[in-house]
Amino acid sequence: MREIRPGEGWARIRPEWVALVVTMDDRNGRPNIITLGWTMHASGDPPMAAIAVGKTRYSHELLTETGEFVLAYPNSRMGEAALFCGTHSGRDVDKFAETELEPVPAKYVRPPLIRGAVVNFECKVVGTADAGDHTVFLGRILAAYEEPEEKEILLNFGSTPSGKRYLTGITGYKG
Amino acid sequence: MREIRPGEGWARIRPEWVALVVTMDDRNGRPNIITLGWTMHASGDPPMAAIAVGKTRYSHELLTETGEFVLAYPNSRMGEAALFCGTHSGRDVDKFAETELEPVPAKYVRPPLIRGAVVNFECKVVGTADAGDHTVFLGRILAAYEEPEEKEILLNFGSTPSGKRYLTGITGYKG
Repeated sequence: MREIRPGEGWARIRPEWVALVVTMDDRNGRPNIITLGWTMHASGDPPMAAIAVGKTRYSHELLTETGEFVLAYPNSRMGEAALFCGTHSGRDVDKFAETELEPVPAKYVRPPLIRGAVVNFECKVVGTADAGDHTVFLGRILAAYEEPEEKEILLNFGSTPSGKRYLTGITGYKG
Repeated sequence: MREIRPGEGWARIRPEWVALVVTMDDRNGRPNIITLGWTMHASGDPPMAAIAVGKTRYSHELLTETGEFVLAYPNSRMGEAALFCGTHSGRDVDKFAETELEPVPAKYVRPPLIRGAVVNFECKVVGTADAGDHTVFLGRILAAYEEPEEKEILLNFGSTPSGKRYLTGITGYKG
């Protein structure tokens, strides 16, 4: 994992990639992971990410309480873990324990980075907007890290008409 | 152009598509168009879009003043028009006059729909969030329209290292 400039890293991200958001539960010191498809660039200078999180989600609670998150883009071998994190609640399971994802301490925020993710960003919540069944959280990007060996990244996943979720494929990361 | 349910239309949109945002200048009654890459789903029920618009843009001024916009997804023949709208300011040019894009009156908002766009949404701004060099505008989707004959849609465009903008291709719309 190699640290790069936040703006440089953030400019490389594409909106169709699957994102993992790591938060911290201060009550038990346990991090949680949610899989998100609703993310976008919100500012270039300073670099900021916008993420939309459902109001009923455990991660929504933790983001509101702590104001910190890690935004990680999983490599192509992390598809099953991303599906698991997107279909289970951290209220019930410890997602780092139940998947092969491994935490790495971050520098400026308490939630950990994800080892081997193609890119990791440390983010501080600097604003929110109420949006129906979701809240949009704006995260100022404090630090960015690339994994030089990881060039395959997961595309966003959707749902079949029956509600079954799937990953749509992988694409190339130009880091 | 066929009206469909707002939530049904919005669920079909993918984040990697180029978007056109149409606003109205109430001072001269002239609509403007901006090309955006920073858009996302912000709510499923009610359906809401989030769009990030640079603070120096003419469209930022019009969105702030009027609180209304049309979000349109151009068909594959509208690439040059999308590039034009993304690289010129409506303070200087009338983009409907300078491109082949044609306005069609909307039902609930003053900015017009774009004739022949694959999908058009009428949106009312229901919230904003300050985000560095951009503002995130949350648009509640009031109405949605599909063009049944248009199935090819433009992918988001990027910039070369020299700053030249380009379109990355087209993809299929499943309407």
